Amino acid sequence: MSDSNSPDMIRIAIDAMGGDFGPKAIIPALDMVLKGRPEVHFLIYGDEVKIKKYLSRYKNLNRQVTIFHTDKMVQNDDKPSTALRASKGSGMRMAIEAVKNGEAEAVVSAGNTGALMAMAKIVLKTVPGIHRPAIASVMPGIHGDTIMLDLGANVLVDADTLVQFAVLGSVFARANKTRDQQGAQDDKPPSVGLLNIGSEETKGPEHVREAGEILSRIDFPGEYKGFVEGNDITRGTVDVIVSDGYAGNISLKTAEGVGHLVRTYLKESFKSSLLSKIGAFFAYFALRDLRERMDPRRYNGGVFLGLNGVCIKSHGGADALGFSSAVILAVRLARQGYIEQIARDIGHLTDQENLLSEDD
Amino acid sequence: MSDSNSPDMIRIAIDAMGGDFGPKAIIPALDMVLKGRPEVHFLIYGDEVKIKKYLSRYKNLNRQVTIFHTDKMVQNDDKPSTALRASKGSGMRMAIEAVKNGEAEAVVSAGNTGALMAMAKIVLKTVPGIHRPAIASVMPGIHGDTIMLDLGANVLVDADTLVQFAVLGSVFARANKTRDQQGAQDDKPPSVGLLNIGSEETKGPEHVREAGEILSRIDFPGEYKGFVEGNDITRGTVDVIVSDGYAGNISLKTAEGVGHLVRTYLKESFKSSLLSKIGAFFAYFALRDLRERMDPRRYNGGVFLGLNGVCIKSHGGADALGFSSAVILAVRLARQGYIEQIARDIGHLTDQENLLSEDD
Repeated sequence: MSDSNSPDMIRIAIDAMGGDFGPKAIIPALDMVLKGRPEVHFLIYGDEVKIKKYLSRYKNLNRQVTIFHTDKMVQNDDKPSTALRASKGSGMRMAIEAVKNGEAEAVVSAGNTGALMAMAKIVLKTVPGIHRPAIASVMPGIHGDTIMLDLGANVLVDADTLVQFAVLGSVFARANKTRDQQGAQDDKPPSVGLLNIGSEETKGPEHVREAGEILSRIDFPGEYKGFVEGNDITRGTVDVIVSDGYAGNISLKTAEGVGHLVRTYLKESFKSSLLSKIGAFFAYFALRDLRERMDPRRYNGGVFLGLNGVCIKSHGGADALGFSSAVILAVRLARQGYIEQIARDIGHLTDQENLLSEDD
Repeated sequence: MSDSNSPDMIRIAIDAMGGDFGPKAIIPALDMVLKGRPEVHFLIYGDEVKIKKYLSRYKNLNRQVTIFHTDKMVQNDDKPSTALRASKGSGMRMAIEAVKNGEAEAVVSAGNTGALMAMAKIVLKTVPGIHRPAIASVMPGIHGDTIMLDLGANVLVDADTLVQFAVLGSVFARANKTRDQQGAQDDKPPSVGLLNIGSEETKGPEHVREAGEILSRIDFPGEYKGFVEGNDITRGTVDVIVSDGYAGNISLKTAEGVGHLVRTYLKESFKSSLLSKIGAFFAYFALRDLRERMDPRRYNGGVFLGLNGVCIKSHGGADALGFSSAVILAVRLARQGYIEQIARDIGHLTDQENLLSEDD
């Protein structure tokens, strides 16, 4: 392992057996990632025979991996509690432990979300002061991408937890932005909105209104812009949209559903008549462009925020391109030292809360 | 008014001044509705001069309307409480009162949603036993339309209220279906799902889990199918999706946002190069078909459920085609006697609750 420890090297732990396709999708994904990022080294956990079967096709990748064999794997339909009890020695757990032990800078898995979150919480632990971790993802928008959280790690949460999510999302937004600007630090704080059912201060459930009230007076690494609505997600109104996991997950799944509906309509429309088929032929480039922009695989990768380590969940149904997006996100975050930033910013938040409670 | 009282006639009260366009969009919309439904008579409330300006272009429509002049109107940005206090004599209020007084079978307004709901609750009153009214709408899906409620009349609600929403949605689904089958009664109860963040019984917030438990054991006019997720809305998995107004509104607005994003991408893709423009020319019919299927105007119309009268809210930004969809929905529901059905089914629900509490 000493050869994979040079200072510029980024080491990513990969749970190779998770998701619907396992190594068949995951190994080609790693090769895609390596093409633009030769400094990445992969620690791959899973069935060595199956991994090597796909790995043999990629010469360059072969030189940049270390395989850790295990027969044990978490099933996609295991309950988190069941998976956790039986997790010792599973590829998912070993990959998380690699981050814990400093052998890797980040872990990526396409396995069971609940099990991954439960294991990551136990092994990596939450950043001191964090109430609950959250899942964040990048969403495409007309005026730019938006980071949204929580997407379902929690259900309903209290106002203080929403405020912590605003901190987590702001730090993530900054880490994610920096890469796009080739390392140039952008000092403008990310704009943050609270997902609600109207923009007036009097609207919405109590936990959201109270969080809005707190965010408008505290000092945190983002700039609070008030309430936003569901249609602001794809508008790119703000850099970060904060929600509890109940509304956030329903919103995310709704967006996925509408995307799927549109792709179905698109296919049907261009097959509906001979003229339409001719149209599709001439419109090939426009349709390809549209498909690429609407491709959910480009936005694959849920980041577990609030843990002492970078842990990324890929969609279970992700193919090679989809999984590669999740790994690229892991590489980006592994570089940014954003965990340390979260610890500092949550500490600053707790200090303000203590000051406020002393004032009472 | 006696001439508009024949038994087959359907009388719809129209708030002509609401929405972004007022009579300019609303009057042409009424003419569209009349073309397929010559039995409809409109009671139009608002500024007579402005209404007549547009009405003069439609000879047939002119014979089927009665205008009730008023200068007073509810502003789009009034708070519901402000609007309610100053509402006497406004077009919106007069149109609702027409339903209350039996002069019309339904009312349609594109005005301020909060004001319309507040006024409709005061004037029409809720059906006995109803905790809170809900807003429902028809959503397009791959395997058929789905009725979804609540879309924002409430925020978070308790389990019993979700159960009532399931009853309201089931009765609406049946009334809405019957029309499509040319009056043939379909005796299969509509399938009902509860919107949640996972399909397992242990998932989600308490009010949703408790509602699921109640729905799986009571007798109500739908067939309970368990939890559904956000992507089930556009899949058409069930006929009715029940949610609190917080998650429901966020989900609806998310869907609108993604639809808008896709239409923007579509336009940009077909304008991106000369070849794409040629492609768009040849793909004209396919693109027109796609646009029509994705057209949110076809699904315009939020139904206020749980009130003693049919009250439909059109989107404020609806044009003539959009407003006509809302009026057609009003005509359909006005025929079905579904208010009486709601009263019976809510009564049956209350009886079961009483029985259960006696058992305790």
